[in-house]
Amino acid sequence: MSTIEKLKGFKDYYPEDQEVREKIFDVMRNTARTYGFLPVDYPSIEYLKMYQIKSGDELVSQTYNFKDKGNRDVTLIPEATPSTVRLLLARKDMQRPVKWYNIPKLWRYEEPQSGRNREHFQFNCDFFGEPQRQADIEVIALACQTLNELGLKGLYEVRLNERALMEKILSSSGSKDTQKSLQIIDRIHKEDESTTIERLKEQGIPDEKLYDLMKFLTSSYDLESFKNIPVDGIENFEEMKYVKTLMEKLKSFGFKDVVFHPSTVRGLAYYTGIVFEGFDKEGQFRSIFGGGRYDNLTVLFGGEQIPAVGFGMGDAVLEKMLIANGLWKRKNEELACFVIGKGVQGQTVAENVANILRTNHVITELDLSGKSIARSIGRASSRGYKVAIIVGDEEAGKGVVQLKNLSSGDQKEIAPENLLDHLSRKS
Amino acid sequence: MSTIEKLKGFKDYYPEDQEVREKIFDVMRNTARTYGFLPVDYPSIEYLKMYQIKSGDELVSQTYNFKDKGNRDVTLIPEATPSTVRLLLARKDMQRPVKWYNIPKLWRYEEPQSGRNREHFQFNCDFFGEPQRQADIEVIALACQTLNELGLKGLYEVRLNERALMEKILSSSGSKDTQKSLQIIDRIHKEDESTTIERLKEQGIPDEKLYDLMKFLTSSYDLESFKNIPVDGIENFEEMKYVKTLMEKLKSFGFKDVVFHPSTVRGLAYYTGIVFEGFDKEGQFRSIFGGGRYDNLTVLFGGEQIPAVGFGMGDAVLEKMLIANGLWKRKNEELACFVIGKGVQGQTVAENVANILRTNHVITELDLSGKSIARSIGRASSRGYKVAIIVGDEEAGKGVVQLKNLSSGDQKEIAPENLLDHLSRKS
Repeated sequence: MSTIEKLKGFKDYYPEDQEVREKIFDVMRNTARTYGFLPVDYPSIEYLKMYQIKSGDELVSQTYNFKDKGNRDVTLIPEATPSTVRLLLARKDMQRPVKWYNIPKLWRYEEPQSGRNREHFQFNCDFFGEPQRQADIEVIALACQTLNELGLKGLYEVRLNERALMEKILSSSGSKDTQKSLQIIDRIHKEDESTTIERLKEQGIPDEKLYDLMKFLTSSYDLESFKNIPVDGIENFEEMKYVKTLMEKLKSFGFKDVVFHPSTVRGLAYYTGIVFEGFDKEGQFRSIFGGGRYDNLTVLFGGEQIPAVGFGMGDAVLEKMLIANGLWKRKNEELACFVIGKGVQGQTVAENVANILRTNHVITELDLSGKSIARSIGRASSRGYKVAIIVGDEEAGKGVVQLKNLSSGDQKEIAPENLLDHLSRKS
Repeated sequence: MSTIEKLKGFKDYYPEDQEVREKIFDVMRNTARTYGFLPVDYPSIEYLKMYQIKSGDELVSQTYNFKDKGNRDVTLIPEATPSTVRLLLARKDMQRPVKWYNIPKLWRYEEPQSGRNREHFQFNCDFFGEPQRQADIEVIALACQTLNELGLKGLYEVRLNERALMEKILSSSGSKDTQKSLQIIDRIHKEDESTTIERLKEQGIPDEKLYDLMKFLTSSYDLESFKNIPVDGIENFEEMKYVKTLMEKLKSFGFKDVVFHPSTVRGLAYYTGIVFEGFDKEGQFRSIFGGGRYDNLTVLFGGEQIPAVGFGMGDAVLEKMLIANGLWKRKNEELACFVIGKGVQGQTVAENVANILRTNHVITELDLSGKSIARSIGRASSRGYKVAIIVGDEEAGKGVVQLKNLSSGDQKEIAPENLLDHLSRKS
């Protein structure tokens, strides 16, 4: 044991987990690149006021904010979007559309009993400068393909909604303050039904409309069940047609598990169009990703109006879901050698062999244990190495090495200069 | 312009730079894996006292420390080694040797006029549990191979020294407090020669030894010039023999630019054996990487004694050196398509084609500009795409797409279902 300890609410990652995380981050980066998104990066510390502008004081109470040594009110970044928008507004020369991704670390000062960590990584993708449907589709498809590449195809659903559509429906139901009503809906799954009904009443929605509204809000609809939506004339709303087209397009691209989900409104006030969240179908976890269209955020930050749509996908829920589905697994290395040298000459040859393999990008562990060859081979097998290369003084004298296939147990003598050729033929 | 701004001392990275950084981080991870190092990760915030134990108050004055909302004295991590050692000591079950790497972000509250950023990433590799020469060699070779993989072969040198050797030489020269003398030597290139001489005198080194000592300290020695070292009997010190063996081994592995460098002592008090730093040969920049053996740090942290050797390589100097050598370049994508759809049907086909390509991991940009085909093609070329796929209503009607090679200008009609096959044959 040590006299030093980790802070509560934070997590260490040892190789058995960190190798999996690095694979996940690779999948995120590669999938984003596949969709033509380019990487950006920004500081982990920003002025606190940037978040006050966007999210008000509720978020701020949960940030890791502090006064720095220059007495500035700063915070560890709690989300990615403000920094991304800041970068966009600082450069006039960016050719539009601008499609950016990043995987920053984010911090929240949550109470430890919430079960959430105080830091996590989040995969963020934002599509700026394109007001059209296609941008919405690309962003949702990219989120879905990322999950598919991770092996989660068929295990999640995307819940889609449209903020303007909800505002129209609430308004025509008699709601006086649609923003407040949206906030009530945002909490619908956290409250008793009676509490929600009471609060919606207070917003001016009359009793006779409440039954159908609650039914509408607590259901979800796929393309087949659209006709069952209990809102009169909803099929004539432009936004409803739009949601339907999105769902049809995504389906035609192979992303079938997308539903229209009226209670997905995403509390943050700055969304202006579609909003969406990804959930595991079993309903075990929080949302896997969430996002939407936010065409006015650049204006809120003092810049020109730039259409925007994006999503964030945290690594914590993803980790839980991959574990639950048996997909939290280390990469199987194609080619990995465990080199064992015994005796003075044998060790020197082993060192040289390891150096040649590494210089040629073969993953190579050089055994330094000083244990018997049998024990070293046992250790190589238990660590997942495919091949052992063994050199004693006898082999060194003859100018050969023993090449042992650790799966089959086959062993043969081979000249060191033929090793690379031999290994690459086998892989 | 925007009303929000970035904090001083921090840097944003736009795609033209961030793409290069991601490539560099990939090289680091892959090279570490090649040497059998495994990834770990740890929080960005730790108790401040962890650094006070190791480095005293000087480092602490430069950390981003603050009181968190629970009134704990915490800090953004200024270096990687303490967290790594904390992880090691927290797990008794790790099979030794333990070889770990990570690329954490680190923070220092430096004055902005220092020209250094307040945050940077650092590639760290540590080799625990192996007291032998081979661990020292692996760690230095790994640092060198990382630079070689980045294209810097021949442009840097490694300066090697041994702390125990220096202590013996200083001691036999009459130094009363060898740690203090080492600190003076650590600053030798930052001070006037006369100041250094004055301070060494204060440590008890007599005038008649100072001339040779200063000559020794301000030179460096390769394997050929070892005989010129102006220290009597130095060839008999075990540590000197050890340094020579290391240099010979590294040379035999192809890492030739390694010199014995007496003034490289690395100020931090916890090094116990070899120390080393990598520098550009032109001498333009600070050190590219630095490290050494630190066999007692685990004891300082209240754990058992575990031999350790490691290095850290920051991304800031590396960035400057790559830029200076014309090596700060974006990756050339093997296969990248720019898909242009015109007309209602053409656009639908283009969307489907883009979806198929992306699902098959081809980097694909879908043109949404609404501009003329000629302008869209111009944009594709200027963004480095190799291939344009063009679909108008006419092509859509005929069930084909136009495939245009943007380098040669060649264009041909092809059925969409043959695209993938055709593209992969070309790559």
